[in-house]
Parts: sequence; C-alpha cells; structure tokens
Amino acid sequence: MKVKTFPINAGKLVAILHKIDAEELGVMAGDRVEIVNKNNQKTCVAVVDITNYAVVVDQVGLFEEVIEKLKVKNGNKVNITPTGQLKSLDYIKKKMNGESLTFEEISTIVKDISEDRLSDIEATAFISAIYMRGMDIDETISMTKSLINEGNKIEFKKGIVVDKHSVGGVNGRATMIITPIIASTGLLMPKTSSRSITSAAGTADSMEVLAEVCLNVDKIKKITENVGGVIAWGGAVDLAPADDKIIKIEHPLSIDPEGQVIASVLAKKASVGSKYVVIDLPVGKYVKIKDKDTAIRMAKKFVQVGKEVGMKIEAVITNGEEPCGMAFGSALEAKYALEVLEGKRFDNLAQKSCELSGALLEMVGKAQHGKGFEMAREILESGKALEKFKEMIKAQGGKIYSSDKVPTAPYTKEFKAGADGVIDELNTKLLTKIARIAGSPSNKTAGLMLYKLVGEKVKEGDLLFTIHAENKEKLIAAEKFAYKNLPFSFKRIILHTIR
Amino acid sequence: MKVKTFPINAGKLVAILHKIDAEELGVMAGDRVEIVNKNNQKTCVAVVDITNYAVVVDQVGLFEEVIEKLKVKNGNKVNITPTGQLKSLDYIKKKMNGESLTFEEISTIVKDISEDRLSDIEATAFISAIYMRGMDIDETISMTKSLINEGNKIEFKKGIVVDKHSVGGVNGRATMIITPIIASTGLLMPKTSSRSITSAAGTADSMEVLAEVCLNVDKIKKITENVGGVIAWGGAVDLAPADDKIIKIEHPLSIDPEGQVIASVLAKKASVGSKYVVIDLPVGKYVKIKDKDTAIRMAKKFVQVGKEVGMKIEAVITNGEEPCGMAFGSALEAKYALEVLEGKRFDNLAQKSCELSGALLEMVGKAQHGKGFEMAREILESGKALEKFKEMIKAQGGKIYSSDKVPTAPYTKEFKAGADGVIDELNTKLLTKIARIAGSPSNKTAGLMLYKLVGEKVKEGDLLFTIHAENKEKLIAAEKFAYKNLPFSFKRIILHTIR
Repeated sequence: MKVKTFPINAGKLVAILHKIDAEELGVMAGDRVEIVNKNNQKTCVAVVDITNYAVVVDQVGLFEEVIEKLKVKNGNKVNITPTGQLKSLDYIKKKMNGESLTFEEISTIVKDISEDRLSDIEATAFISAIYMRGMDIDETISMTKSLINEGNKIEFKKGIVVDKHSVGGVNGRATMIITPIIASTGLLMPKTSSRSITSAAGTADSMEVLAEVCLNVDKIKKITENVGGVIAWGGAVDLAPADDKIIKIEHPLSIDPEGQVIASVLAKKASVGSKYVVIDLPVGKYVKIKDKDTAIRMAKKFVQVGKEVGMKIEAVITNGEEPCGMAFGSALEAKYALEVLEGKRFDNLAQKSCELSGALLEMVGKAQHGKGFEMAREILESGKALEKFKEMIKAQGGKIYSSDKVPTAPYTKEFKAGADGVIDELNTKLLTKIARIAGSPSNKTAGLMLYKLVGEKVKEGDLLFTIHAENKEKLIAAEKFAYKNLPFSFKRIILHTIR
Repeated sequence: MKVKTFPINAGKLVAILHKIDAEELGVMAGDRVEIVNKNNQKTCVAVVDITNYAVVVDQVGLFEEVIEKLKVKNGNKVNITPTGQLKSLDYIKKKMNGESLTFEEISTIVKDISEDRLSDIEATAFISAIYMRGMDIDETISMTKSLINEGNKIEFKKGIVVDKHSVGGVNGRATMIITPIIASTGLLMPKTSSRSITSAAGTADSMEVLAEVCLNVDKIKKITENVGGVIAWGGAVDLAPADDKIIKIEHPLSIDPEGQVIASVLAKKASVGSKYVVIDLPVGKYVKIKDKDTAIRMAKKFVQVGKEVGMKIEAVITNGEEPCGMAFGSALEAKYALEVLEGKRFDNLAQKSCELSGALLEMVGKAQHGKGFEMAREILESGKALEKFKEMIKAQGGKIYSSDKVPTAPYTKEFKAGADGVIDELNTKLLTKIARIAGSPSNKTAGLMLYKLVGEKVKEGDLLFTIHAENKEKLIAAEKFAYKNLPFSFKRIILHTIR
C-alpha cells in the first residue's frame, strides 16, 4: 500500500484504511495491524481507523507518530498485515470482570499506555474499570511501581529530597511558603506543580506571575542544586508520561479513582527522588474529600504504598472547611503568599505552611520531635524564607520580587455586610466560581479577596470581599452571580418563628 | 482564530488547539468549546484536542464534520469559547456509580452518541459502565426505544414483516434458506446481515458470492416489495447509526453487554418494520452462549422487551454443540445452502431452517399450531424456496444461481481417520480457526468442508474434513495447525489403564 502522510500528532499509533481495504484485510476499526516499511524494513503496530474519504483504496493514512517510527515518506510503499490482540486487552477485560491484577499485568498495561499502543477506547475501558471496581492495596502498589518504572527521573548527587502534596484543596499557596522555608535549611525541594483545573488558580499559575515555570528537567535539576528549591509546572516536564495520559482520560469524565490518585502522586514524587513526603488531605464540605473516614483510609494507603516504594510518608488530615488564606486568583494568591513571607500577615495559610514544614523538618531529623513548627516559624519570621524565595524567583528568570509590585485587575467591586452578625459558613466553591467568572484562571490578575473568615464578628458595612475583574463585562457578570449566590452565611439566633 | 482545515473524517466533532491557546482559554484536552463562524454565525460544539505541532498559535484545526456544520473554509475566522459539560456526562457518571438510568437519561446519551457529540473516551466510559454494572430490564427497554428513535426506518405500505436473528452461532447459513421459504408464502423478510468478525464467514459474506449485498435503503425496500425477501449487508445501510457507533467501541474490547445485545438486535429489527421475530439462541461449549440458564434468561428478556416495542418475539434455544451444516467459509457455505435448496441435502441445517421457518409461519397464522415445520419443509422440498431464492439473487444483481457454479479454492488437503471409532466431540472453534488460516473470510473461496458429525461411526481411512486454501502457503499453515490442534475427538472405551 501507498503511504499518505498527515502532518498531525494523533497522540497514538493509528493507521487509516479505506473501507474496502479494511474489509479485504478482515480488520475492523480498533483492530491492530503491523506496518512494514518496504524501503528499510522498519515495523510498527498501529490501531486501524476506517474511512471512505481521507484515503483512497490501496492507500494508508499515517500520522506523525507512525511516520516517525517507520521513517516513511508520502508515497512510500508499506506492507500491512493484521496482528493479534495486545496482552493488555486480556488484563483490562479481567479487571472489567472484577478480578484483581498482578504487578506484571498492571505494568504491561502501563507500558502500553506510556508507549501509545492503547487506543483511547482501550485506555478508557481500563480507567473505567479501576474506577468502578476499585484497586486494592496490592494493585495500588503495582500501579505506583509501574508508573515509576515508565517515568523519567531526576537524580541529585547529594542532598535529601523532600516534598509536600495537597490532595484537592481549593486555594492558598502553601507551597510558595513551604518550599523556601525547607530550602533554607539545606534540604532539596524540587516542586512540580499543577495549573488550575476547576479552582481559581493552581500553584504553577500563581508562581508564573512572579517567575518562569515552564522549566525542563535540566533547569529543575540545576536550580535545585544551586538554590535548594524550585517551583515548576509539572506539565512542562515529561516526568510521568503514562500518568499524564491517564489524567487526560480522567479529566473529561471528571473521575479520580482513589488508588490512581495515590499512585499518581507518589510516582511523581519518586520521579524527583523524594525520600520524605508530607501529604496534606483537607477535609470539608466544599473540597474533594468530604469526610474524615475517607481521609483516614487514604492517609493509611499513602503511608503503606510509600513504604513499598522507599518513601517515608506522613499524611496529615487538615481542616478544609474554610479557605486557606484570603486570596482567590493567580496574582492575588501570589501577592498574598509574598505578604506572608514579608511578615505582613500571619494567618491560617502561614500557620498551615509552618505546620507542614515542621512535619517535614521533624521527619528528616532537622528538628527535634515537637519542635518543627517553631523552627519553621522562626525561619519564616526571620526573613530567611523570603530571601530564599527571592533566590528561587531569580533562578527561575524572575519577574516580580515584592508583594507591592504584583499587578491586580483594575475593575473592582466591594461587597459589604448588610447587617451585624457572626459568620457561620463560607462556601469556597461559590467564592471560586465568582473568581472564575471575573476572569481567572485565564486572566492572571482577576480573582477575589476575602476579608472575613468563619466565626468572625461582622458589623453592618464591614467589607466582606472584593471582586477583581479583567474587564467591565466580567465584573458585572461576577457581581450578578455573587448577589444571587451569596458565599457567606451568618449565624442565626432565632432559627424559626411560629406565628 | 483562523481556521486550518484537515480533509479527514474524524468520526466526531473535534477542534485542535495549540497548547498556548488552550491554556489561555482555560481548556484541557477533552473539554468542549463552542465555535462560531464569524462569516455566517453558524455554531458547533466540539471536543478539544491539544497539539504543539499541527496548528500554530491563534489557529484552530478542524476536520470534515465540523467544517460541514460551520460551512467554514481554510483561513476563515471563528470565535471559540469554553462551554459547559453535556448532560450525558452526568448520566454516564451516574451509571458508573451503579445507579439505574431513566428513559430520558438513556435517550439523551444515545442521541449524543448518534450525533457524534460524545468523544471516544466518554462513549467508552458509558459502554464500560453498562458492561460492568449491567442494564436492568427497564434500562434495556429504554435503550431499545432510544436506538429505534435515533435510527432510520424502512416502511412498507402493505404486507407483514417478519425476521429471524441468531445470537452468536458459528457457521451454517440458515438465513439463506429461511428467507426464501418465508418470502414464498407472501410474507416480507428484508434481512440485513453482518459480515464475519471472528467466524469463517458471515451471512453477508456468503450471499455476496451469489449476489450484491451492498444495497441502499431504496433497493432493499424495492426488492422486498417485489420479491418478498432480500439479504443485504447491514453495514451498507445506515439504519442504526448509534448502534453502529456502540459496536465500534465494543469490538476492540470484545465485550457484548447482554442488555445491549438485546437492544441492538431488536432496534435493527424495528428499523425494517418487523412485527414477528424468531430469535435463535444456540447454546454450546464453543459458541457465545455457554449455558442454558443464560440462554433462558436472555430469551425471556427478548420476549419482554419485544412486547414493549410492539414486536411479537419467540426466542428458541438451539443446540450449538455441533456445526450447523458442514461448510466453513463464504463460498462453501453459499454452495452448501444452495445444495439444501436444490434438494441435494437434508441435514441439521435444513432441519433447523425448517423449524425456525415453521415457528414464524405459526406466529403469523400462516400455519396451524404444530404444522409450521411441515409447511416449511414442503416449501423447501417442492423447490418453491429455490425458485424464490433465485428471484432474490436476480433482484440483487445476481452472479451465481446454482451450487455447481460456486467456485472453491484450488489448494486442498484431505484429513482422514487414522483408526475406527465414534466421534465424541467437534471443536467448532478449531474448525473455524483452520478455515481462517486457510484464507477466509478475506478470501471467499477458502474454508473447510466437514464430513462427519458427533455420534457418527468412522472407519480407518474415512474422510473427516478437507481444507480449501487460497494458496500453497496458507494450505501448509492450515494443515500444520490442524495436525497440532485436532478438531475431532473420538469416544474411548478404555478410559484409563493401570499397569
């Protein structure tokens, strides 16, 4: 057959056949064929897609990935023969049928995902199966090890690598405070962070206001060795290709199987050589983990799986009932974290950052048992953490070094209390939604600043929150939404009146 | 953004964005965006795919389906905005979580599948969910009704439409005998058949040896009205687009959720207006349904669901332990069916064909209760069925009208009994495999002829089966396989010897 090249990355190994050729070969869409380049005998197995239009009879359409493997050019001749099924498919089917998978079976599947051999259909069937059937602890360990084996690694010649990870929090940029505290003690903290998916900002989004976050492996390694800490965007580093592909499937379905969360987090930590990790599990009505039992179960699994892959883990369950820090939005959260580092604020974000830093310092023996928090607070209040953070910003191609230089969106609207009262509940989901309507995360300067937390007394006319919007239209839309969906509720003395 | 067109059918509505644009829009791969053509204000919702290569910044890559909807040309400008999730996704998630779906929910999903709004990932999650969670009877009814609503229909002005369907048999072309028997009584039988997937031949493959089977809706309608019967390839008729898409996902996973089988079969029967249908459920070690309990459960569901969509169903459980007829392969099976119609043979294929025809004749009242089989046999033996079949062949652009004109592959190898004995078991899976190695179904003349059935006495040197291969290489390969994996086993008197 003659090759017709398409200059597109398909994200998987695909061969487009004309309906008549497919019939003759006895293959259907989704079957696999072996393609041999007649010029150089290079071979490749691809998944068949069938068309009536894109190619003519006796022509096969190939995308970048297959073109690369076969070193083939438009018009070249190839031989195509049907091949058997991948072993992975038997294992996926086994999991769909409710049986547990062995390490060998899981690692075969992960290898096939990593090397683009599975179609979206096949990979989705697997993810759906681990979502619906669950993964037991052995499978979670197998998955973690498989992801580690398939991923890339950053290795450091000397130094102890530590890390922290928060599972499904909402706002607050503890990472931007913890990393410099830890790095200033001589430990290494090469942090790869995510961008926002459903929140107002991710750590990578916030850090990007101050410095570059699209760093490659070499840069991350160099900065960590020189400065001790770095905050990069994980998406720019190809550390866990299989995991990235799994997340690409989980995202549109908005599913997040518990075992996969654990495997994914720990494999990423392992890829940068972390030996000590604090896992933060916020529990609350408006965050990912709704109840303490789930958090405790996950915490235990994190510790157990960590042990199996050579990591010391401390999983802490934290209060996710209220926001952590008062800012929502990339720039506002960056500004806020800088203010904490500059000593202008010490609130629940600072408290959490020092507690988590303290846990890490105690784990590695930098601080005596029970003295970690104090040590972290001392580093923060002395200004050492701020100095270290500025070093990090500089090493990452620094843009902004001081909280008063952080830009915020010009269109603002203040919301004030209509009566006296005590704040009973803060709906962080609604606060996030308002920030997103105002323009975050695509606009970095947009967002929302909060002025009161749960339990605080409020007088009529007190400022509750301010919306920062990218333009007038978005300000009006966010305002409207906020009036309709008040993110605050007040404590009531009279709960009910009988008339 | 500027449009870059790709002249490819993607099989779904896709928009390819550059990584930087996707980030700015705040969308990830798998999210949905609304695209508005600035020239004519036509809109379309598409699933985002992200690339670094295929398009540049401020450019969106569109495939045929979206190009068609937007009436857009290469270089045109479009506006792109993120949109919310489809409702279908909530329902798919609900099913994944083990809850039952209502009719409205299932029909929303089926509509979205039918109109290409769901990505492969989303559709696969749904199919996986109905496979792992199962569909209860109400869901099966909802699915059947939804597939009927989304499909196309052939309507006949007069006449009673009947049909038969076999669930997962192996060989034998009862359809080629039943259709002319039924058609010669004045009933209408517009049969859409499948091609082989795992067998040596499908009915459409076999019929294609004698006549054209790629017929459109108009032709099927016209031939049925003129002749009474037709045997077309279902794949060439766009009667059930949603079902075809579901099968495209089931196939690579080789899953076939029970409820979906029922819905799929009955929706296809409804699309041609069938009112009376016999469902044949072969049970045996080497066919799809392995045990009688499963067959009985499915049979009851077929009847119940049929009633809900206005169809009278009789589901019969048949013996799938041995082949039905002695031929394996498109041409050999066509030749064999013709021989039955020509009165040259009356064996288990003829018996089954008359029994199923008889059941249909009794259902519609053409034959008295208990007299259907005799009536069918009379039609077959009188030669009326053969005459009708020749009319059908002619109407379908006939090629071959007589069994002695059917070509068979020239390379043959006979397998003879090495000793006297009684045949204990026939492995139809192995027989099929041998036929496939010899070249079927892609080569129509290749296959295998069998000469003995279970229970028959065999003398040393008696012919057991003959392989017909497309060429010498395939003959040798099929021979080798047959020697290694004998499809026959003989009854033993001495089962075990103690020495």
